[in-house]
Amino acid sequence: MEIEIHLAKPEDRKAPNFDKLVFGKIFTPHMFVMKYEEGKGWHSPKIIPFSNIELHPAAIVLHYSQTIFEGMKAYFGVDGKIRLFRPFDHINRLNRSADRMCIPQVDPNFAFEAIKTLVLLDKDWIPKQKGSALYIRPFIFATENTLGVKVSHEYLFMIILSPVGPYYAEGFNPVKIYVTEEYVRACPGGTGEVKTGGNYAASLKAQAVAQQKGYTQVLWLDGKERKYVEEVGSMNIFFYFSDELATPALSGSILPGITRDSVLKLASHLGIPAKERKISIDEVISAIQEGRLKECFGTGTAAVISPVGEICYKDKPYVIGQGQTGELTKKFFDYITGIQYGEREDEFNWTVVLE
Amino acid sequence: MEIEIHLAKPEDRKAPNFDKLVFGKIFTPHMFVMKYEEGKGWHSPKIIPFSNIELHPAAIVLHYSQTIFEGMKAYFGVDGKIRLFRPFDHINRLNRSADRMCIPQVDPNFAFEAIKTLVLLDKDWIPKQKGSALYIRPFIFATENTLGVKVSHEYLFMIILSPVGPYYAEGFNPVKIYVTEEYVRACPGGTGEVKTGGNYAASLKAQAVAQQKGYTQVLWLDGKERKYVEEVGSMNIFFYFSDELATPALSGSILPGITRDSVLKLASHLGIPAKERKISIDEVISAIQEGRLKECFGTGTAAVISPVGEICYKDKPYVIGQGQTGELTKKFFDYITGIQYGEREDEFNWTVVLE
Repeated sequence: MEIEIHLAKPEDRKAPNFDKLVFGKIFTPHMFVMKYEEGKGWHSPKIIPFSNIELHPAAIVLHYSQTIFEGMKAYFGVDGKIRLFRPFDHINRLNRSADRMCIPQVDPNFAFEAIKTLVLLDKDWIPKQKGSALYIRPFIFATENTLGVKVSHEYLFMIILSPVGPYYAEGFNPVKIYVTEEYVRACPGGTGEVKTGGNYAASLKAQAVAQQKGYTQVLWLDGKERKYVEEVGSMNIFFYFSDELATPALSGSILPGITRDSVLKLASHLGIPAKERKISIDEVISAIQEGRLKECFGTGTAAVISPVGEICYKDKPYVIGQGQTGELTKKFFDYITGIQYGEREDEFNWTVVLE
Repeated sequence: MEIEIHLAKPEDRKAPNFDKLVFGKIFTPHMFVMKYEEGKGWHSPKIIPFSNIELHPAAIVLHYSQTIFEGMKAYFGVDGKIRLFRPFDHINRLNRSADRMCIPQVDPNFAFEAIKTLVLLDKDWIPKQKGSALYIRPFIFATENTLGVKVSHEYLFMIILSPVGPYYAEGFNPVKIYVTEEYVRACPGGTGEVKTGGNYAASLKAQAVAQQKGYTQVLWLDGKERKYVEEVGSMNIFFYFSDELATPALSGSILPGITRDSVLKLASHLGIPAKERKISIDEVISAIQEGRLKECFGTGTAAVISPVGEICYKDKPYVIGQGQTGELTKKFFDYITGIQYGEREDEFNWTVVLE
């Protein structure tokens, strides 16, 4: 398929000043759009000037939330090259999300071409400062108009780009997280392991409670026993105990994060014993109390690596590592961002240079 | 607040022939729209010609599914009067859904006025045949544009109307339902008891499996133990055992259906012992095998009362009441639809006549 390109007006293509970037509020001049219709498949891929879209008021996405998305980043390297981080892992996860949500999959090579073409067209909008990047949001949603609950026969696949700074206002400083016992994000047999809107809508209430209490994010426990740690709002989570680095094993209700996987591979490369296993909240709290939890951090495309300085459980705060960023946390952050910004050799073949 | 009204062109207002209505495919000439902005609250209510809406590609509803809805019906009575069925119960449930999903609530009296004004404006679109009705879909969704996961500061509250026939192709004939053990719709602490899109998106895969096997709907088990019956795709469920009528007790993950509540109240009025309690799938299957399950039916606004003629569990079909509609099922259907269509006295004060 050939992507039809309609350019934005030159005056709309000029990149603004990227001094005070917040996450996901400004967008580049172009966007990618492709339609799906039952019987015709995916067709008419286009890059057009960024603009509002038109939807029928009965479009399935508005009522029954049949929608999936991905989040990845393009980095402007110290060598002036533009890099994507594990793009095919993101595209393959998009297709796994599609399968779970009964959405037609996209051709991975074509999706990569669409991302590449769009990013290169708007490459002046990639912020150059380290810590900043061009956030890439591919998403697919159901557009058929009907009020019956059913799998849509029509979809839009869109890609939009947003120059972003650090995800948290805290930057690379430790965040404080709040364990919710009242709310559950996902349970086995549900949709917790895919990137679909409903998981995030379900998280808002607990997030609001956490923020009222002065915490940045929610730490979710498993839906079945409310005993085992699953993930943080928009990140996977790692615990560095005295003798091992551990992260919750993928249970079916945990998002298989790509940064999570990168940390696991990197730990193995660095000779750090790392385990995916069940981790109860009681184990975490005891380890903090006994001084055995040395570090804690979250991982995710938006935040990359985010140190956790405090966990609140049963309304009691537990400080980790004096609330400071730990050495290993910093090491992972430096290593992964080093690869992303082309500062160090990419021995894992994680990055793809766009040119 | 005054509702500003912009009329559709006269040629668009002429009602079509309602002979072959399917559910939720055609819409009346007008729709209600009201905006919410943080700091300003709900404002600028309008009734305008039915048309597509414009959304920013980063509108929160498309990515994080912050959205809620209701479903109610206006009935054209045998006495020529237009009746709504328990409208304030629907509006109050909309507000409970709003609270769970961090969406600003609407004033119940104003919401009722909006529904009433819209339905009366498009009253020629209420089909007159019994079994048909004008389906009313109020919904509220997040329109703020940002890729950060957060509670939206902007919303649209819309109401659209669709003339509908029976929800199932089967009409008032028994449907066949399929017990899924693989997929889970909702779990305690989640969003199962409110009408938000994510619950429905999560149900599509199991629904597709059921349909492939020749079943109309999925029967969901509880997310924690996968042992207790919760609800059917778009309905609550009742079992008429030898000595009692029973429906699953509201567990936090079951939708508190208004037709469900009506059946419970009606059973009590008719002197039929009815219980809300835990019902295991094993109890249901044993009762079928031992001939103790006399009838089974689903309840919901879309389908009203829908007899269930067969349950498939562990890939084995179990026929209920020789696959025929039971007497009690028929009695509830006749009683409730009798009230809805003004054929019998409404001793419960469930209906509100619009004039």
